[in-house]
Amino acid sequence: MKKNIAVVGATGAVGAEMLKALERRKFPVGEVRALASERSAETKIGFGGAEITVEELREDAIPDVDIALFSAGAAVSRKFAPLFAGRGCVVIDNSSAFRMDPRVPLVVPEVNPHAAKKHNGIIANPNCSTIQMVLVLKPIHDAAKIKRVVASTYQSVSGAGWAAMEELTAQTRDVLDGMPARPRVFPHRIAFNCIPHIGAFLENGYTEEEMKMVNETRKILEDDSIAVTATTVRVPVMRGHGEAVNIQTEKKLTAARARELLSGMPNLEVIDEPAKALYPLAVDAEGDDATFVGRIREDVSVECGLDLWIVSDNLLKGAATNAVQIAELLL
Amino acid sequence: MKKNIAVVGATGAVGAEMLKALERRKFPVGEVRALASERSAETKIGFGGAEITVEELREDAIPDVDIALFSAGAAVSRKFAPLFAGRGCVVIDNSSAFRMDPRVPLVVPEVNPHAAKKHNGIIANPNCSTIQMVLVLKPIHDAAKIKRVVASTYQSVSGAGWAAMEELTAQTRDVLDGMPARPRVFPHRIAFNCIPHIGAFLENGYTEEEMKMVNETRKILEDDSIAVTATTVRVPVMRGHGEAVNIQTEKKLTAARARELLSGMPNLEVIDEPAKALYPLAVDAEGDDATFVGRIREDVSVECGLDLWIVSDNLLKGAATNAVQIAELLL
Repeated sequence: MKKNIAVVGATGAVGAEMLKALERRKFPVGEVRALASERSAETKIGFGGAEITVEELREDAIPDVDIALFSAGAAVSRKFAPLFAGRGCVVIDNSSAFRMDPRVPLVVPEVNPHAAKKHNGIIANPNCSTIQMVLVLKPIHDAAKIKRVVASTYQSVSGAGWAAMEELTAQTRDVLDGMPARPRVFPHRIAFNCIPHIGAFLENGYTEEEMKMVNETRKILEDDSIAVTATTVRVPVMRGHGEAVNIQTEKKLTAARARELLSGMPNLEVIDEPAKALYPLAVDAEGDDATFVGRIREDVSVECGLDLWIVSDNLLKGAATNAVQIAELLL
Repeated sequence: MKKNIAVVGATGAVGAEMLKALERRKFPVGEVRALASERSAETKIGFGGAEITVEELREDAIPDVDIALFSAGAAVSRKFAPLFAGRGCVVIDNSSAFRMDPRVPLVVPEVNPHAAKKHNGIIANPNCSTIQMVLVLKPIHDAAKIKRVVASTYQSVSGAGWAAMEELTAQTRDVLDGMPARPRVFPHRIAFNCIPHIGAFLENGYTEEEMKMVNETRKILEDDSIAVTATTVRVPVMRGHGEAVNIQTEKKLTAARARELLSGMPNLEVIDEPAKALYPLAVDAEGDDATFVGRIREDVSVECGLDLWIVSDNLLKGAATNAVQIAELLL
């Protein structure tokens, strides 16, 4: 029953959380191998009370494991995921490399667990912003059929890795001290600023991050008739993404009915008591495996619409936790 | 030709900018009177190379001026604006007290300057988030008729005054130093966090700030058929509001045509060169009287729609500058 696991990109912000999620969720691990680039090789990482030495990821030394969790960027996944899969291992890939590949399932376990069964050695973990949104869209779509979604995101810097988190901290100190901000990871100053630019710009004026929300949502909900548009914005928050989401449905849902449907969704918590100023916040979601939804109200601009606010820890449900949950489906 | 001016709330974040805007825009001022609560009376404020002593705002000492710029909250406006207007002065009120009063014009000078002429002694300055949005909506509505708008805001703390700006600074230092955040002005921690709650909550689940965007937009554009919904969010930015706005129109507009129309709007600057990572940013808009728009693209989710991103300094065009521009209409 125990599975041998490799984590590729083990020293990154998501990789570190993948190892913690395996421990926290008591995944039945046999041997655990931690892999990373040459630069991080020989680093020691604690796991299960012991210490693992990080190994260099090399074509001529693909480890023999049952499941490999990848979070080392799309280029690494494109090159190495097929090599791991070729050795009979199942790769759960957190990069964008295979997400829209029709042969690769794109899975959020609470939403489309059945899809995971049809894999050919690779299962893709969706984009962080998409995961937390589809958890909310799923029960609404089942009950009232979603026609269109307009999403605006408030994304924390941790989605861009350790260096981005360090940049926000250092830059914030500099700005408070009256020093100039020196952007390196982000294209502009992120301290006390919002940047409407995540991922590269595409021909149609959208960013890659925005089109991920458009395309991945349809694939996961298995319905290409759902129209989605998104504007994705980086905000000076360390961890946890917020999303203001407007949903138009075919059938009318009252706010009360929507709250009821959302409360029935596993790993989704409704926090929606305006009178007590209770709604989801990034600082409260940090470190939690759940996704949180609130500000649920009937849209005053259309007959059948809802407005709501979703928050989740982008390194957990948005990445590591969802990947480990996919691994749990394979047990 | 010179006008005697009173600024009510002269020591507040917006009041201070009103005085600066009168100077910067070379408004033909005669005497300038600065008024505030008892607490701020006797403070000295620089104006035009001289010094003004702040006077206490009192019912039995309404100054004899031509124009009064109010920014001291709705309660003060409700009580004092009619007293000023009763003495033949024109009040330009930055609070929400009279905005939806059918006898009071609600004016953005580039959008509906004609409305200012029909005043009965009071002209209302719209909400900051509304002003920067209608500057963009106006040319699009004229060319293609707007059916529906979905707005999500990224609002800086300065909209809540000096104390809010100090809270963001102090709290950010505390959090960086590993100390607990102590919220006072905001209902929750604002340092490295986003709060989807601006203004009081209403029966329909929206906040006051959100319903201002819904109702004021229709009044300024003089078209109740425009459907608007909004989610307003406070972000840890000092000055400058961002807005992700989705617009559905009756007629199709290409992104190129929209860019052309927006470029023709006075005091609105198009910054839209994705290839160079150029789009509006709060830190660039700070201190500027203009409003900035970018990320203009055709919405992939509908036949006739646009997505775009608007930024403006909420203390300037969102408050002080717009108020002084209304005063200029009265000359």
